[in-house]
Amino acid sequence: MEFMKLAIEEAKKGMAKGDGGPFGAVIVKDGKVIGVGHNMVLVNKDPTAHAEVTAIRDACKNVDNFDLSGCQLYTSCYPCPMCMGAALWSRVDAIYYGATSEDAASIGFGDHEFHDFLKDPKTDEKRKLEQFKVDNYMEPFQIWAKKDDKTPY
Amino acid sequence: MEFMKLAIEEAKKGMAKGDGGPFGAVIVKDGKVIGVGHNMVLVNKDPTAHAEVTAIRDACKNVDNFDLSGCQLYTSCYPCPMCMGAALWSRVDAIYYGATSEDAASIGFGDHEFHDFLKDPKTDEKRKLEQFKVDNYMEPFQIWAKKDDKTPY
Repeated sequence: MEFMKLAIEEAKKGMAKGDGGPFGAVIVKDGKVIGVGHNMVLVNKDPTAHAEVTAIRDACKNVDNFDLSGCQLYTSCYPCPMCMGAALWSRVDAIYYGATSEDAASIGFGDHEFHDFLKDPKTDEKRKLEQFKVDNYMEPFQIWAKKDDKTPY
Repeated sequence: MEFMKLAIEEAKKGMAKGDGGPFGAVIVKDGKVIGVGHNMVLVNKDPTAHAEVTAIRDACKNVDNFDLSGCQLYTSCYPCPMCMGAALWSRVDAIYYGATSEDAASIGFGDHEFHDFLKDPKTDEKRKLEQFKVDNYMEPFQIWAKKDDKTPY
């Protein structure tokens, strides 16, 4: 089955099980599926368990690496900012999506607002976003910069 | 100890253990810490295991709910787009950060580029971002819209 169809089937499967919203994703490497995931927000009681994050984690576990360079992400819907960020960190080289953010909004999933927030976080009135400096706020970075045995990534 | 100090200590602890980069976070509710996390990208081989995501997951597990309304996130560094998205989905009402994105860039963590990507995803030349429609791409949403026993969230 083609990869986007698999993402759609995964979305349907997860929803039928009651695991979460109607979203599915697969990760592909060299023409083979190496990771699969659907939304598990409700069953895991975890707001970060979106289909893309779940699929990325599954793929990373399967390849035993945090780096998915050379892989492609197929997701049933345009990624929310969290999932887009996860895809960037995973280093997939392509993100293919089925439905759009507008399609998702039409059934009540309004992550459109989150995309707007990321474009201009300072203007948000619903929540505070503030720098809060303590005297040693740079200490972790100073230690990291001098660390001899670190693994850069 | 004040909450930002705790986030800094968590960052130092995680880095000393070799778990990942120098980042820590705590979630606070009613003046009490209900979740703690540090970057675990290296130890978990998981690109999504940032401090904020780890702390949000820990808090959700502890309160047995995916909704952290009324909670505050203290993070040692300005959240990357993935973590900002995770914070929005978790519904915390405040995000307090220590170091800035520029501070992080000064030690080699360039998620500045990711913030830029989220502001204008279509312009990226490093990876593809394309709609890929299959004939039933709207089917999961159509099923969800008609589903009687769903839990909206």
